[in-house]
Amino acid sequence: MLIDAESGHQVAHHVHPYRHGIMTTVLPEGSSIPSGFTLQNANDYTEAAANILSRLGRGRTIHGIGLGFTASSPLPASADGVPLSRQYPGDPHAYVKLWKHNAQAYADSINCRPAPFLDNFGGRVSGEWLLAKAAQIAAEAPALWAATDRYIESGDWLVWQLTGQEARGLGFAAFKAQFSAEAGYPEGIVEGLHERLSAPLPVGSAAGTLSAEWRDVTGIQGAAVVAVAVIDSHVLLPAIGAVSPRCFVGALGTSAAYLYLGDAYRPLPPGIEGVAFDGSMRQLWCYEAGQPSFGDTLAWFVRTFPRGKDMQASFLAYNEEVAALAPAAGRLVAIDWLGGNRVPFADGNLTGLLAGLTRHTTAGEIYLALMEGLCFGAQTIFDLFPSGGLPVDRVLMASGLARANPLLIQMMADVLDCRVEVPEIENATAVGAAIHGAVASGAVETYAEGAARFGAQRFTHIEPQPANASRYRSVYEIYRGLTSGGTVHSAMHGLRDL
Amino acid sequence: MLIDAESGHQVAHHVHPYRHGIMTTVLPEGSSIPSGFTLQNANDYTEAAANILSRLGRGRTIHGIGLGFTASSPLPASADGVPLSRQYPGDPHAYVKLWKHNAQAYADSINCRPAPFLDNFGGRVSGEWLLAKAAQIAAEAPALWAATDRYIESGDWLVWQLTGQEARGLGFAAFKAQFSAEAGYPEGIVEGLHERLSAPLPVGSAAGTLSAEWRDVTGIQGAAVVAVAVIDSHVLLPAIGAVSPRCFVGALGTSAAYLYLGDAYRPLPPGIEGVAFDGSMRQLWCYEAGQPSFGDTLAWFVRTFPRGKDMQASFLAYNEEVAALAPAAGRLVAIDWLGGNRVPFADGNLTGLLAGLTRHTTAGEIYLALMEGLCFGAQTIFDLFPSGGLPVDRVLMASGLARANPLLIQMMADVLDCRVEVPEIENATAVGAAIHGAVASGAVETYAEGAARFGAQRFTHIEPQPANASRYRSVYEIYRGLTSGGTVHSAMHGLRDL
Repeated sequence: MLIDAESGHQVAHHVHPYRHGIMTTVLPEGSSIPSGFTLQNANDYTEAAANILSRLGRGRTIHGIGLGFTASSPLPASADGVPLSRQYPGDPHAYVKLWKHNAQAYADSINCRPAPFLDNFGGRVSGEWLLAKAAQIAAEAPALWAATDRYIESGDWLVWQLTGQEARGLGFAAFKAQFSAEAGYPEGIVEGLHERLSAPLPVGSAAGTLSAEWRDVTGIQGAAVVAVAVIDSHVLLPAIGAVSPRCFVGALGTSAAYLYLGDAYRPLPPGIEGVAFDGSMRQLWCYEAGQPSFGDTLAWFVRTFPRGKDMQASFLAYNEEVAALAPAAGRLVAIDWLGGNRVPFADGNLTGLLAGLTRHTTAGEIYLALMEGLCFGAQTIFDLFPSGGLPVDRVLMASGLARANPLLIQMMADVLDCRVEVPEIENATAVGAAIHGAVASGAVETYAEGAARFGAQRFTHIEPQPANASRYRSVYEIYRGLTSGGTVHSAMHGLRDL
Repeated sequence: MLIDAESGHQVAHHVHPYRHGIMTTVLPEGSSIPSGFTLQNANDYTEAAANILSRLGRGRTIHGIGLGFTASSPLPASADGVPLSRQYPGDPHAYVKLWKHNAQAYADSINCRPAPFLDNFGGRVSGEWLLAKAAQIAAEAPALWAATDRYIESGDWLVWQLTGQEARGLGFAAFKAQFSAEAGYPEGIVEGLHERLSAPLPVGSAAGTLSAEWRDVTGIQGAAVVAVAVIDSHVLLPAIGAVSPRCFVGALGTSAAYLYLGDAYRPLPPGIEGVAFDGSMRQLWCYEAGQPSFGDTLAWFVRTFPRGKDMQASFLAYNEEVAALAPAAGRLVAIDWLGGNRVPFADGNLTGLLAGLTRHTTAGEIYLALMEGLCFGAQTIFDLFPSGGLPVDRVLMASGLARANPLLIQMMADVLDCRVEVPEIENATAVGAAIHGAVASGAVETYAEGAARFGAQRFTHIEPQPANASRYRSVYEIYRGLTSGGTVHSAMHGLRDL
């Protein structure tokens, strides 16, 4: 995304697909990939960056460059930044382990030991995080680990390539490798990991400027300050105006991510997955939580019980039917754990549930209940903040799903019983990355200035409807009764154990 | 159904639809029917009987005649058996109140008072039973009630018409009017009810012989002994060989009825709805229980989520898919309360539930779970007998659904973990009625002889598969955990109360 620094307009954008995509079966040189591995090829990142920066930047004066990147997606590299996949093209461990590559067994053995460094991260390492992935390489490919000088997030690695100097983003380090300003990275987790990391910089920091080599390749002129990379689900914050404390932001996609920006630290409310300072927005604490299945749940239903010639037609048919229904019209309640639960139980073995079925229940009423269940799951997360001493002044719901489905957002406003704002902006993630570049380069003084100049200019305000909000309070009580009881958890665990 | 007394063959049968069908809006003379009333016209019964008996019996020597009839479906009549609907054609209370006409408010007020006579009937009068319907007439149509000499089940009334003398069946009297041999009918429930009833006779008793008038009409010759009428869901017992103690019989239809024949009386296990001696099979106790929604539940799913051009095609498609699945293949469990629950909670406000949903759940897995849930509901009923000191030697599953769906019966055998026998007989209900006629007339000495000569000659035996039975034991534990807990009941009640 190329943005004009004066007008704030989105001038052009370009997408370059990764040559090798997501690799799960075969490496580029032909070796097979073990089951459970989900890899990418770092070469694809530089190829895409060269193509995109050339297409958008050639001959232009570029103030700053910002990147949003998936995480934790680390790779092993040499001291001069060469990915080990060049030297060891036949070793799967030499490639980028994508965020969804889950080294759960290694996370489990880390979690067996007391770990005060996890106080701010829900008390346990996820198998998707850097520590577990480092432990996996050290255990399964010790020679490769010995040859690894730097173990680095892909976003940080690409910034290094662009500038010629290593500079890591604090968001990656904190949320994915449990770094804290006070204690640094946790000690004694993986032999030799500590010296393969480096201290990170707050978001909006300049990692350096575009190197001479990349200026040659891309034809970019100007300062071209490169900001430290940012976690992709956090990078959109300034693009949607979420730059101040007491903002609650939902990014509703196949899953849902929720971020709360606070000016104070509070011990983590139970179920919140992480909190870090300076890692998502400058001088603010960012608390992170999520629902593993959100849009996925509705897509599952529409795919399983189609109503039209394709998914799109089915979605339209169900949405049209549901729009005519009163809240909880079928007197059903759904538990939204089709992908497990993160908040408040952090239990991937919990599953979805539907109660209240009769011989008169319609498919539309079930679809409605699933939508409502998603909103109740969001409310469970939302409520943790005020009840934990972290007040909410603004609720923002972002993403295509939020804009495409006004019904869902009205339901969210009714369930949360507060105004919801939907920022009207295209390409919010890319614009957010650009704002990070603008801050790092000094093109704007602050994120607030960047948001005002480059971010969403219009917000649709959705107010709660009092009658619906009142009815949803009753249904939510029923949802809470079902979700908090041991009866339902026991049944779900029993089913998983079959 | 005409059966040859020597060969036992089904010679002919005939169906005659009731002229007025089920009346819910307008009486035959044009008056409108109040909301909630479900009526039939007694004239239709004699018209149908005349037609059927003439078609099947003219010129033949008939030993005996038996009738199965819906219950409780009582009507008010004069002392000489004329239905009051002839004298009061504009009064809805003068017609047959069909079993599904529910006088719940009157049942509720009867149930407010201590009622030891209900010990054998689940502790409460149903709004579908005779006592509640009598209370309704007495309260809402006192003049009509004053003009009523006899208040009588339709089946008993038709027997009276055929023979010219009143003779009531013990099954109707016991299960639907709480008669017992020791205490008679309960006293003091409805003013004047007692003298409008009469003492019943055990099933298989001769009510009389076909009257001269009916011989003229039908051209029937021979003894033509008419047996006392029998409740339709009980009348099939001798046709399927269920004539001896320790038989557990399931009649699987849109709902499911279960009958247990015992040679001993035990205080009613919790949730069993009724027990009577001599009311279903001679010299045996018959215990009755049921699931309000059985085939209905599968039909609901297939209608709501069709898979073919019509219901039949959808059923076939789902059954084919499910046949290839292992038990609990989707690791789902369903609670079968889509029509409420009778055993063990007697709570019509309970509803269906589905647990274990993920984004990979298929429609076929849900259909499988619903079938399994129906079998778990059956197991809950089945288990009450052995645990209450009433052992089970044979399990019989009857009805078209049992014969049409071998998959369901295999599942039932696996869940109950015992052999299930499916009697291979057409028209079992009509054949059962004929056997009652044969017993009453002395054409056979005993029900056992009647069953052997006229009833099912072949039984398909379905043995449980040990691996499936073992897995279902685990799933049933989960089902029991969900169904017995207050958490789930509270949620369902909360939904009903919305």
